[in-house]
Amino acid sequence: MLQINKELLEIAQKCKQASRQVARLSTAVKNEALKAMAAQLEKDREQVFAANAIDVKNGKEKNLSPAMIDRLILNEQRISAMAQALRDVASFNDPVGEMSDIRTRPNGIQVGMRRIPLGVVCIIYESRPNVTSDAAGLCLKAGNAVLLRGGSEAFHSNKAIVDSLHKALQASGAPPEAISFVPTTDRSVLTDLLKCDTCIDLVIPRGGEGLIRFVAENSRIPVIKHYKGVCHLYVDKDANEDMAINLLVDGKTSRPGVCNALETMLVHQDAAESFLPRAAAVLKKKGVEMRGCSATRNILPEIAQASEEDYYAEYLALIIAIRVVKNYEEAVAHIEKYGSEHTDVIVTDSLKTSQAFIRDVNSSVVAVNASSRFSDGGELGLGAEIGISTTKLHAFGPMGLEALTTRKFVVTGDGQTRHNIEW
Amino acid sequence: MLQINKELLEIAQKCKQASRQVARLSTAVKNEALKAMAAQLEKDREQVFAANAIDVKNGKEKNLSPAMIDRLILNEQRISAMAQALRDVASFNDPVGEMSDIRTRPNGIQVGMRRIPLGVVCIIYESRPNVTSDAAGLCLKAGNAVLLRGGSEAFHSNKAIVDSLHKALQASGAPPEAISFVPTTDRSVLTDLLKCDTCIDLVIPRGGEGLIRFVAENSRIPVIKHYKGVCHLYVDKDANEDMAINLLVDGKTSRPGVCNALETMLVHQDAAESFLPRAAAVLKKKGVEMRGCSATRNILPEIAQASEEDYYAEYLALIIAIRVVKNYEEAVAHIEKYGSEHTDVIVTDSLKTSQAFIRDVNSSVVAVNASSRFSDGGELGLGAEIGISTTKLHAFGPMGLEALTTRKFVVTGDGQTRHNIEW
Repeated sequence: MLQINKELLEIAQKCKQASRQVARLSTAVKNEALKAMAAQLEKDREQVFAANAIDVKNGKEKNLSPAMIDRLILNEQRISAMAQALRDVASFNDPVGEMSDIRTRPNGIQVGMRRIPLGVVCIIYESRPNVTSDAAGLCLKAGNAVLLRGGSEAFHSNKAIVDSLHKALQASGAPPEAISFVPTTDRSVLTDLLKCDTCIDLVIPRGGEGLIRFVAENSRIPVIKHYKGVCHLYVDKDANEDMAINLLVDGKTSRPGVCNALETMLVHQDAAESFLPRAAAVLKKKGVEMRGCSATRNILPEIAQASEEDYYAEYLALIIAIRVVKNYEEAVAHIEKYGSEHTDVIVTDSLKTSQAFIRDVNSSVVAVNASSRFSDGGELGLGAEIGISTTKLHAFGPMGLEALTTRKFVVTGDGQTRHNIEW
Repeated sequence: MLQINKELLEIAQKCKQASRQVARLSTAVKNEALKAMAAQLEKDREQVFAANAIDVKNGKEKNLSPAMIDRLILNEQRISAMAQALRDVASFNDPVGEMSDIRTRPNGIQVGMRRIPLGVVCIIYESRPNVTSDAAGLCLKAGNAVLLRGGSEAFHSNKAIVDSLHKALQASGAPPEAISFVPTTDRSVLTDLLKCDTCIDLVIPRGGEGLIRFVAENSRIPVIKHYKGVCHLYVDKDANEDMAINLLVDGKTSRPGVCNALETMLVHQDAAESFLPRAAAVLKKKGVEMRGCSATRNILPEIAQASEEDYYAEYLALIIAIRVVKNYEEAVAHIEKYGSEHTDVIVTDSLKTSQAFIRDVNSSVVAVNASSRFSDGGELGLGAEIGISTTKLHAFGPMGLEALTTRKFVVTGDGQTRHNIEW
């Protein structure tokens, strides 16, 4: 038997017990609890702000970057957005209990698949305190208990948010342990947490690549994760050039720091001469640094040479790598070699090439004539997003409520046996 | 970087490359390859028998049990069954390319989910050589490459089967590395194999609990597994007694050594006095040893007292543990505590109790008035079974072709961007 911190094991076990109660809650009770959580959070905003002020003060003393301090800060607007997100989740369809694939077998038994909660979902996250209520709301709606382990920088904020949500749960008749909180940010506790495979069904790490790798390497529990998004825009020989420029600018410049932003553009050699100078003019105007292959630099001699590393890079900045490809096959081979199986886009008017791209590119989101920035739970119509998976097991791509559930077989009969029984 | 046996890494990398080709094969080509595999196997039966004779001779010299020798033996009938299984898989619907959940978003982009292969599936198995062709066929149909690592006892048989399948693949235009074989049974090679997370997408161990635990504890790759099946029959107060006896006898005696056989019977106290003597008479006649709780022994004083361990036991033999429960809730609590989340059955004529059981019991297969022995890919209508999962991620329960695939998002638009673009 593994040695696990006793207090932690007790929290995880109580969370597992609560998960069984949450799995049985009716949709109406879950929705009331979500609305009560939203109202309570707004009511308790002063306590949350006070706790947040401690975190912000500590963060400044520790010389956190202005960007990190910004992510940490809670204000009226952010509390309202958190409350609204909980009310939105209340309005989504409940995935639990949905029956599908119902069939009658020749012997008369009826077989179907029933959608069920996963059990206990452990969210391990870094500085943003809004993840606390967002994850709690999504897990509750999907009938799961959640075990939250936030970052040390947001510890007081997260604790104040959880305290507030607990009041709402108690008033709604849901068990408070359905939203459990690890009351320490000690790293050794995190390692212990990742060993609790009898209590926790799924771990979702959210944060930088370092955190995610640490979790993946130390977990005995299934982990759903994605490391990075190296997203490609392939401008085919049959592309509409104006459309390609729109998708390029949206993908590269509308929010360069996110995982569904473009990092590399591939251009078919037949399109390069006409398209590249026009695209480069717009990118330059938008302040984007370009790095190209030799064929690109024959057309755009003013830009820098791209190295092998550039094609692997997730810049998360106003930089783009460009490569001219001989044909469609070379574009797909490039994406296969350098890509991250996150999101890739083709611009083409050819039905045949678009169908081939959809079939051949192994990414979780494949887009034809649409921006990579749509690779997002809300934009794809999932309602909200708990994370994104670039491992193919269980879920692949943006994950909404459905990915927080699984399916079991339900068999109903009127006494059928597999063999004839005599007695 | 991890140190992995160089030869092994090369095999895994070639298998990964082949998986990309297999993913693009048309259904017609895959079906032709499956039929060619069946025909080739029948044609090469003498070579397979010769290889099998070596394994059987070695097994006898190593004093393998008669049951293990029996599992190892290949004869005309077994080769025909293996060929027929391949032809059956050819006749199944191809899951790859199926589009579902298609919706149009307010901005006009169309979002759908496309079913895609997983990539490389590694099957780690023990003595039965038929797993070699069964797993190869299912993986191929689902568009995956398979990496086979069989047990040392069946090494020559497995190798002969793979050699035969390779001839058929080559003649069909499918890459031979789509069915890859680890040409050694060294345990340290197994450990290395479980580190190849860039080449292998999924590991399915099939065999005894020792093998499965070894794989789960040493793998960096997602593992789909099940340890054991402690299946329950709950005879409710509203049960039809004759039906309950039929389901009891089918579940306990038709094949006691399999994971979907019954191990424990729970009886509602209101049904016990009438039902238990009748059930015991039949069980006794069928040669089943009974072990009961005190309340059971008040009615059946001749049977042995069940210990706590009996309720956790997967006997895989003609033994059954019996317990009288006060009510429905106590039955569900017993299953939750002692069960393995594999397959559990209720016998009841009450609609309300059956619905509650379907909702409350967290097992991969929940059956109402039907035998636990139906918990099997073929019986449930999946076509064939590659394994069974009692972990809830990805798949839960018997796994057919669909569980060997996943889904990606496909977005098609006519130039939509997430933000308005000006240039």
